[in-house]
Amino acid sequence: MSAIRHALSIKREDDFAQWYQEVISAADMAEESGVRGCMVIKPWGYGIWERMQRLLDDRIKQAGVQNAYFPLFIPLANFEREAAHVEGFAKEMAVVTHHRLIADGEGGLVPDPAAKLEEPLVVRPTSETIIGDAMSRWIQSWRDLPLKLNQWANVVRWEMRTRMFLRTSEFLWQEGHTAHATAEEAKVETMRALEMYRAFAEEDVALPVIAGEKPENERFPGARETWSIEAMMQDGKALQAGTSHYLGTNFAEAANIRYQDREGGQELCHTVSWGMSTRMVGGLIMTHGDDDGLRVPPALAPFQVVILPMLRDKPEDAALLEYCEALRASLAGQSALGEPLRVLLDTRPGKAAAKRWDWVRKGAPVIIEVGGRDMENGVVSLLRRDALWDINTGKPAFENPTCEAAAQTVPTILAGMQSGLFTEARDRREANIIRDITDMAGLSEYYGEDQHRPGWVEVQWSKPSGEGLEAVISQLKALKLTFRNVPMNTPPADGSCIFTGKPAVERIYVARAY
Amino acid sequence: MSAIRHALSIKREDDFAQWYQEVISAADMAEESGVRGCMVIKPWGYGIWERMQRLLDDRIKQAGVQNAYFPLFIPLANFEREAAHVEGFAKEMAVVTHHRLIADGEGGLVPDPAAKLEEPLVVRPTSETIIGDAMSRWIQSWRDLPLKLNQWANVVRWEMRTRMFLRTSEFLWQEGHTAHATAEEAKVETMRALEMYRAFAEEDVALPVIAGEKPENERFPGARETWSIEAMMQDGKALQAGTSHYLGTNFAEAANIRYQDREGGQELCHTVSWGMSTRMVGGLIMTHGDDDGLRVPPALAPFQVVILPMLRDKPEDAALLEYCEALRASLAGQSALGEPLRVLLDTRPGKAAAKRWDWVRKGAPVIIEVGGRDMENGVVSLLRRDALWDINTGKPAFENPTCEAAAQTVPTILAGMQSGLFTEARDRREANIIRDITDMAGLSEYYGEDQHRPGWVEVQWSKPSGEGLEAVISQLKALKLTFRNVPMNTPPADGSCIFTGKPAVERIYVARAY
Repeated sequence: MSAIRHALSIKREDDFAQWYQEVISAADMAEESGVRGCMVIKPWGYGIWERMQRLLDDRIKQAGVQNAYFPLFIPLANFEREAAHVEGFAKEMAVVTHHRLIADGEGGLVPDPAAKLEEPLVVRPTSETIIGDAMSRWIQSWRDLPLKLNQWANVVRWEMRTRMFLRTSEFLWQEGHTAHATAEEAKVETMRALEMYRAFAEEDVALPVIAGEKPENERFPGARETWSIEAMMQDGKALQAGTSHYLGTNFAEAANIRYQDREGGQELCHTVSWGMSTRMVGGLIMTHGDDDGLRVPPALAPFQVVILPMLRDKPEDAALLEYCEALRASLAGQSALGEPLRVLLDTRPGKAAAKRWDWVRKGAPVIIEVGGRDMENGVVSLLRRDALWDINTGKPAFENPTCEAAAQTVPTILAGMQSGLFTEARDRREANIIRDITDMAGLSEYYGEDQHRPGWVEVQWSKPSGEGLEAVISQLKALKLTFRNVPMNTPPADGSCIFTGKPAVERIYVARAY
Repeated sequence: MSAIRHALSIKREDDFAQWYQEVISAADMAEESGVRGCMVIKPWGYGIWERMQRLLDDRIKQAGVQNAYFPLFIPLANFEREAAHVEGFAKEMAVVTHHRLIADGEGGLVPDPAAKLEEPLVVRPTSETIIGDAMSRWIQSWRDLPLKLNQWANVVRWEMRTRMFLRTSEFLWQEGHTAHATAEEAKVETMRALEMYRAFAEEDVALPVIAGEKPENERFPGARETWSIEAMMQDGKALQAGTSHYLGTNFAEAANIRYQDREGGQELCHTVSWGMSTRMVGGLIMTHGDDDGLRVPPALAPFQVVILPMLRDKPEDAALLEYCEALRASLAGQSALGEPLRVLLDTRPGKAAAKRWDWVRKGAPVIIEVGGRDMENGVVSLLRRDALWDINTGKPAFENPTCEAAAQTVPTILAGMQSGLFTEARDRREANIIRDITDMAGLSEYYGEDQHRPGWVEVQWSKPSGEGLEAVISQLKALKLTFRNVPMNTPPADGSCIFTGKPAVERIYVARAY
């Protein structure tokens, strides 16, 4: 049995962080831009993000939310107002102070001192305050409620330590902002958005997540409740992959978002915000990547099937191309996962084997190679990205269906791969959640320095707040742990608090996290 | 015969500029944001832009162009490099100089002097230079060519006088950037993009355009050739609605975009860029709007059919809603213009008549009202936005087809409206292009101060350059005219230059313009 050679130089188990960088580079997804903290999202990475946008946007529209677009620049006054209302207000933001460049007399350019803005503008880090301004203009009466808006946009948060897709100064996201007449309606929307993210993550990204509420210290500044979906990466760390915030009337008060109720009284609105970002692409990589590169869930693959004709720069190429084009057309006429198949016939110059490994590293779900002999026999050589290697021979596990059989079975293969990737990730997560640790000694041992344990621990706790909570957090910090969330639909607590020894009131996940 | 009352307070013929503002407000498309030069694009306006994005993006992808995303911030050095290469370099740009806010001690916030950037960053006004940097990394050999990229993004150009959709400091657009081995291939791409814009404008926006080359003085700074599509607004002014630039090797030299050819030599790439922006939404308004508000071409309408049940807050409402929901489902099962119908059942509170006029002003192509009596008779009351008034009675021209007939005929109505709007605009344009003016006296008389002539004039000219061209431009400026373009597929010149009297070499459009 020959050894399997993997398509990357670094294996996950050897150095997960390095492996992550190598996948991004080898799958041609993104690269550093040379601009501090900003990345270039290359076509394959951006194509995956576009698929995420399309599928999540469909869900957003189905919920009756309307897309709109608000200014990139936010006046300083909005942040002053917010700072007065919000503790923990983040200040690392890009500030525009001038609106013109002039020559410096030495061949360079400088901001023109004569074009200094009277009031600096901030590049939006999030849009609660500017959308709040619009809501205060647009909402007059109960008839205008609920108002449900969403924006797809770039935002900027000045980050000192960046990591592609996971933390960059500029990133892409959607931010939903809704206003409601009552706390009850706002909470229903908070949970609707959370459930939308859960379904999107699990059904479209094949990313098993745990939906639950963040504890007090992890709330979005100014929020009354923060809910999240949390996913376990292959190194056992947690990634927060989407959040939904019930903001109470805090932001409504700051932006003066009021409505006249049916009795003529003036009431504050209850607002909600929810967001998902390009961070999700990082989550996809760290969940589905393997030692050969990325594996893209078929629902998100820009191309689900790549056909590689083995061209030889000879007259026979014409017939081979015709054969491949017929296969492409036949596949493109099929549907999988509710949409027409996305098929690429890759005729770029280069050896078919080299191109095969390009597509393996990019994680195209199905690669179909066609050589002259295949054509003579009416067959193709089909490779599934989720079953790349023949474990007996150690070679790529090509199947050789007839052309017709390939066209017919690909939709089934893709549907199976979509659910298979999900199941694989869910089983891995379930195997790495520990539920039987009941004291700090156990927790400390599990995450001890000499351990590289990949898991999350579900603990029971008494949910202290204020100083009590701070004491708990410093206990966690010593182990480099953070709270993730209090999962929904979990049995009630029945033990003692792992931190305080008091009777527990709920179960909560702790983990190391991105 | 009763008088027709229009849904707007201002008529096009009375004050076109004011009418334009009123349509934007009455159709709920956009509003001033309070942030200098930036607008808020409201859901109906943004929905139209999303439809434009979807339809143009399909055309972009069909051409083998790949979407990607590049940083919002561009280092000053890129502009210094560009300034050295490009005359007419625009300097009105937003400059980021700090990355943190701190309290000023008086309850306000100021940029933190300790967080001043070593090198200021410019908010992208266009991305040639930053994408050029990426191209120089990504292109090594002839095998990497052509490289065809596109970006959907926000850009910022500090504008002193702004006008919603037509000229705002921040706007949304797509910018295509391609690199090629030869001038010939680059020119083919330049023309492909131009033809793509023509087809998109005419088929999707129902906007008749004239595709042609801009004269020297109207070229994009640094370009060798600039081509445009130009549309005539209802006031006779021209709107440049899309451009495609052949950049030669200018930008390749500045960014060092080189490739190794088949013989091993190092060659500069020839680059191309092309763009279309939210300006197109302004063009749509000024072309298809009427004295009742906007008329949205069905291909771009976020909702093509709006169903308004005449609810009375009574028990009978339930049956009426059921009847309307069945109609909605039946319509949503149909296709028009190659896509499933987009249908809204509008059950918001409010009187049906008031809601009808909302949708008239927004320009929904078909409005279907259903009252209790309609239901009893198995009919609906259908209003076409392109045939709103019964010219005999002066009342809204409701038709009363059966429910089944309505569902069957709506696709035909929409297809007819799409081509009808185009034909109407094209006929108006053709009636307002003057081709028989052969001297400056005639031009001067046509555009004289006491005239409000809505037309363009096609003149013949000798195409001078340098000082000769400047003299011509000042002649035009005196009449507030600009060159638009030299149309493709026009008979060769056969007369004398209107400006110089020399033998003419080509025909060119002059017009007042946005």
